[in-house]
This record gives sequence, C-alpha cells and structure tokens, in this order.
Amino acid sequence: MTDPESFAHPDADLNRQALVYHAEPRPGKTGIAVTKPAETQRDLSLAYTPGVAEPVRQIQADPQNAYRYTNKGNLVAVITDGTAVLGLGDVGGLAGKPVMEGKAVLFKHFADIDCFDIEVHAKRPQEFIETVMRIAPTFGGINLEDIAAPHCFEIEQALIEQLDIPVFHDDQHGTAIIIAAGLLNALELQGKSIEEARIVVLGAGAAGIAAIRLLMSLGAHRNNIFCIDRQGVIHLGRKDLNPYKFGVAADTEKRTLADAMDGADVFIGVSGPDLVSAEMLASMAPRPVVFALSNPVPEVRPDLAKSVRDDLIMATGRSDYPNQINNVLGFPFIFRGALDVRASRINDDMQIAAVEALRALAHEPVPAEVLAAYEVTELSFGPDYIIPKPFDPRLRERVPSAVSRAAVASGVARIPYSGA
Amino acid sequence: MTDPESFAHPDADLNRQALVYHAEPRPGKTGIAVTKPAETQRDLSLAYTPGVAEPVRQIQADPQNAYRYTNKGNLVAVITDGTAVLGLGDVGGLAGKPVMEGKAVLFKHFADIDCFDIEVHAKRPQEFIETVMRIAPTFGGINLEDIAAPHCFEIEQALIEQLDIPVFHDDQHGTAIIIAAGLLNALELQGKSIEEARIVVLGAGAAGIAAIRLLMSLGAHRNNIFCIDRQGVIHLGRKDLNPYKFGVAADTEKRTLADAMDGADVFIGVSGPDLVSAEMLASMAPRPVVFALSNPVPEVRPDLAKSVRDDLIMATGRSDYPNQINNVLGFPFIFRGALDVRASRINDDMQIAAVEALRALAHEPVPAEVLAAYEVTELSFGPDYIIPKPFDPRLRERVPSAVSRAAVASGVARIPYSGA
Repeated sequence: MTDPESFAHPDADLNRQALVYHAEPRPGKTGIAVTKPAETQRDLSLAYTPGVAEPVRQIQADPQNAYRYTNKGNLVAVITDGTAVLGLGDVGGLAGKPVMEGKAVLFKHFADIDCFDIEVHAKRPQEFIETVMRIAPTFGGINLEDIAAPHCFEIEQALIEQLDIPVFHDDQHGTAIIIAAGLLNALELQGKSIEEARIVVLGAGAAGIAAIRLLMSLGAHRNNIFCIDRQGVIHLGRKDLNPYKFGVAADTEKRTLADAMDGADVFIGVSGPDLVSAEMLASMAPRPVVFALSNPVPEVRPDLAKSVRDDLIMATGRSDYPNQINNVLGFPFIFRGALDVRASRINDDMQIAAVEALRALAHEPVPAEVLAAYEVTELSFGPDYIIPKPFDPRLRERVPSAVSRAAVASGVARIPYSGA
Repeated sequence: MTDPESFAHPDADLNRQALVYHAEPRPGKTGIAVTKPAETQRDLSLAYTPGVAEPVRQIQADPQNAYRYTNKGNLVAVITDGTAVLGLGDVGGLAGKPVMEGKAVLFKHFADIDCFDIEVHAKRPQEFIETVMRIAPTFGGINLEDIAAPHCFEIEQALIEQLDIPVFHDDQHGTAIIIAAGLLNALELQGKSIEEARIVVLGAGAAGIAAIRLLMSLGAHRNNIFCIDRQGVIHLGRKDLNPYKFGVAADTEKRTLADAMDGADVFIGVSGPDLVSAEMLASMAPRPVVFALSNPVPEVRPDLAKSVRDDLIMATGRSDYPNQINNVLGFPFIFRGALDVRASRINDDMQIAAVEALRALAHEPVPAEVLAAYEVTELSFGPDYIIPKPFDPRLRERVPSAVSRAAVASGVARIPYSGA
C-alpha cells in the first residue's frame, strides 16, 4: 500500500504549482468582464447616467424586468460561511475564498453562468440566513457551499422557503445527484434493483443525509439503508440524534460499520480515508457496488478493493481512477436549466431529471472528442464507465434541458422552455 | 427657455437606446471573467480540488494571504439599499441594480478594478450594517451607493469603525472631492480664497453635508457656510435638525435661499431643477462661482446664468456643458490608490490628496488625445476648464499615486507604495 501522503498527492509539485497558479500574474481566478461597449462617452451615457434611469424605472414598475435589463438572470451567488471547506473543516469564510472562486470558474467554464463568490462571517445559522436573504435580490440563484452539517440543513430549508429564486446546497444535492446517477447504472450492471438493494452510507453529513433522501425518493427502502456516523449505525434506539439523523435512522440491531457491511449490496463512503477493511469488503453480498468518495484518500483504495474481490463495481472522487463521482457533472447544468426557465426553486422533480439525464448519457456511445480529451481509445457503458466524464460536451445539451423541462412540468418555471 | 423634458433628454431616443443597450444581446452589463487557464483537467485540478487546498491553508495561516491567492485585493463591492437611486428616490435594491452594474462598468473601465454589485434588502440601517459587515471578508473595499440621508451617515460611520477595509460612500465623499477640486480652481481664477468665501450649499443630503465638511477641512469657515434644506437655511435656532444637519448649522439671521444668496461668493446646488432665480444670481457677490449639480436639470440653467451675469464661473453635472462635476473623476482612482497599498480606510488625508491631484491636473497642458476624444482644438485652465475631463488618461497616473502616498504617510497602508 502506498503511504497516505503520496496517495493524496501523486504529484509532489501540486501544492507549489497551485500557489503559483493562484498568485500569478494577478491574485485570484476571477474578475469582472464588461459585457457591453464601454469605450466612448456615448457608451457610458447608456451604461450609467443618464441612460441607466430608464431600466431602473422599468424594474421599479415590474421586478421581473430585472431579468431583461440586468445580469440577474445569469448570476449565481456561491456563498459559504467557511465551516466545512474541503476536508479542512471550519477554516472561516475568508480562507474558503479560493474554493468559492474555483466554483465560479467551474460554473463559467461548464455552463457560462456568472458567479459572485460571497464569504459570509456569521456565527449563528440565523445570522447567515438573514444575510443571504438580504443580498438575494442581486442574484438569479444561490449555490450554498461548504457549510457544516447539521446547520446546512436548517439554513437551506429556511432560504428555500423564503426566497423566490433557486437555493441549492451543492454539497448535499449536487453530490447526491451524481451518486444516484452512478449508483443506478452500477446496480443495473450488477443486475440489482434500487428497491431491494441493502445500502450502507458511511458519513452522516450534508452529502450522506442528502444521498439517502434522494435514493429513497428513487425507490430505496428505508429499512434497507444503514447510515453510520462516528458513534456507529444510526438506529432508532439512539438518544443523541438531531432531527436530520433521526430522519435516516434504521430500525435495526446492527451497531457497527462491520455489522452493516455484512451482506450489503452497496457501500457509499462520504467520510474519511481508509475506514473500510478488506474483511468488510469480503463480507458484502455478491456483485457489490462500492463508492469510496472521501477525497483525496478514499475509504478503501481501489487497488486493495480489486485485490479482495473482482465482482465489484467501484467509484471514487478522484479523476485518476475510473468512475469519478464529480459534482461538476451536476451543479453547472442544474443551475443552467433552472435559470433558463427562471425557476423559483430546484425541486425534487428537477433533481431526478438531472439523475436520469446523467444516467442515460452514460449508456450512449462516447464521441471521439471525449476519448481524445481523456487520452483513451475506448469508453463504453460498463463497470469502468457508469457515469459521464466532466469534459463531455453533451452534458451541456442534455442535463439543462432535462432540468428545464422538469421545472416547467412541475410548475416552478416562470417562463416557457425555449430550447430544442 | 427649453422645456424641462427636452432639456433633460436632448436625445429623444436615449431611453429606447438605453433599454436596447441593457437587454441585447444578453441582459445586463457585467459578467464574470475567468482570469486563469481553465481548459484542461490539469487546469481545473489547480483551480479547484485538489490544488485549491493549499491556498486555503495559506490563508487560514495568515489572512493577509487572501491578497496573494484570491481576487480580494482588486475587488470592490458596490452596495446599495436602493433608497436614493439617481433622482428617482427609494426604488428598492433590485431596481437599483442597473445603476450598480453601471458603477462596476466605470470601476473596470477607468481603474481596472473588479466590482461585484450587491443590492441589499434591508428595512433598518442596522440590518444593512450587519449585512455588509458579514459579507465584507470577500472584498478589498466597499463603495456604498445611493443610500438616502441621514441613514447613509450612520451606516458609513459604523462600517468604517468596524471594518479593516476601505468603506467609501461615493455620493458623499466622491462628490465632495470633485466639487472641492473644481471649486478651489474656480476661486483661484476669480481671485478669491476658500478661507474668506461665503458659500451657499442648497441640499442637505449626502453630497451637501459631505461637501461642507470637506470644504471646512480645506479652510472654509463655518460662519461663511449656509446650508439650505426644504425648510430653508439650516441655522442654530431650528428645532428639527438631525445631528448631521446640526453639525452644519449656521449662527445666522438668514432664513431663505434668497437671503443666503445675497452677497454669496459660491453657490453649490445638490438639490433639484430650477430652484435658483435670475434675481438670486444677480444678488451674488462679484465674480461668483455657481455649481448647479442637479442632474439632468440643474438648479439654474447655464444659458440663463450667463445671460444674467458674465463674471461667473459655472459648473454642472452634465457632460454637454463645460466643467462637468463627474464622480467618475474620483472613485475609480481613489479606490485604485487605496487598494494598491491595501489601505485599511480612505481617510481625510487621502481625500485631500485626491482633491489636490485633480486640481493640479487641470492646470497642466491637455494632451492631443484628450482634445481628440472631446472633439475640441483647445482646452486650457480657465473659466471653462476648471477640472479634468473623465477621458483623460493622466487621471489613472496622477490620482491613485497621490492617494497611495497619502495612505502611506498617514499610516493606514499595509504595504509600501511601489509605484513610480
């Protein structure tokens, strides 16, 4: 087994290169682009006074005109309080800024969405909620990011209820959507159904809880799902459960991860490095599915897993192994679809539409340009290809349109879907 | 006299053109630019995970590293509550968005500063203050905009005291700085001194109060300044004065605008259209200075004023008359100078340095490219040229360096001035 440090950083130069990348030639990764002519006095008399008065009056008369005359309709705020940044924990808002700018880069690159990153200094969830509520008029949507559980649940719920624009905590639903798409395909390949699969989820944070909820809405049975936190299996007899954990508690005698893994069809790890042993893997049901998503070091390393049993389908959070569960497959396209029809929220139907679109795309033949981007000669639906690759240009066509249509069908769109 | 409507909009097509400008080909005027390579998987592994973790750790270790690895150091928030937008009043945050985006366009065009516009929905000043406090980590500076008096004073003061980045209410200090630069030059041409000038300020809002304070710090005597609101002259006998108006109250028997104008050397209007009569103008002292800055219709129209007396020097807020008092001469360059030395605030010394830099520049020969931009053959210091023109590229050299140096000299800079 390679040591954790080198596994985490196969490229020893990565940190140094990342610092140079962030610092040179100018600090940071995003800036403002002026999208209209702004060279002459005439240009500026349209962009600012006196010309700007008329758009102001139009929006005053009808707030929906903000979508015609300002960037609101293509503008998403990526907002964090810095309490759960990457695997680094509560580093505070400011230290989380490189991640939020990075998210803005991904939104722009993959879906041409403009993003302001906002780092909020708030001690209590209510302060964070109030702050986001008050700055919300600026934006067409809000992507919450790297907010620790359990506050993230309360924060997201309050904002969804009170705002009329999409609010989406990517660490919850973005992750859950990609997991679900990959898992449905993996189960299909293993000849199993989501309704009957026994599922272990290691980690009861934002991603774990959201994944369980989404999988249940896709047919998974509550009695078949075992969620595990630092105290072991979350079961109905525990007295230490917050409402979110209580909602995923099982009626079971299982108490440990090893208990839960015995006979399981699916393992989903959203926790930490090296927590799953060879013995646990061996105890799983035939043809299991193992999603070891802790990053950079997974719950079980692919080389170990494959050496223990050859009938598993495995996914990780890493780009250097097959089947990367990568949120970038979701959030840019989900927001694109929501913004395109001015959806007031991103509801379950829209999330499931994204799951289905991702799942279906993995079944299709892969274009040559995608093969070239990943320097491979073949990629087809199977154990090593259960989910599309991030640099697949078809994502931009398929996922937003599916999300837009679901928004229209479920009554949360403000304008018709105008796409193909 | 032309009628007010056509005077306000000499180009009848302006409103229509402005709507098209704001709507086509895409809504709004600003978007996000990705400033680093973001095409390949390798690029994105530096911009986001796993590369982004190291900048996060560096900022966690020392918050000042945010200036090295994020866009914070070049990022200004333009923030409004929409309570005093242009001459349109309390239109709300959202309707103010075109103005804030326009401000971002000006910041970018004139000083290459990146701006996020933030429209805040807040009912009470304390809510606004809390909101700005909590999102402040994101930014290197905060430009408050279009916030009604008297709340704007309380808001700005609280934020300056509690934040360690520059907070600048442009409607106050930006306007005051340009007024002061132009006025000092006009007085010089008229052979008068600021110390002895009798000054009438019509309008006791953000701009009026700030202008009086700045002129006093430049030598104007409190007993020589008469500020006028809707109730007339603000004098010590009035019982309806808030603390900000009380601070500019005169010990005087004058009660009306006409009283104050009689014998005045200077009129500064930051109020509304057509409030100054020919009789008032005629009653002013010899060689007066008249700044009629209400926009688009000034307190007195230049053609009327010139017909009443030919010994005045006049300025307006309009680009189609000589001596435009335009905030764009100030805020981009003042923030540029503050950001360049990571100033913790924009103090009086820095504001006065900006006044002096603007004032001095108007005395210098005007380069051919500026003449060409304004389609004139001559422009030299005199009654029709008391302040530089916005499209003068020397502004970008002179004003920021003066502001940076003043920040260093007054001890509010965090890094040395590295300019020429």
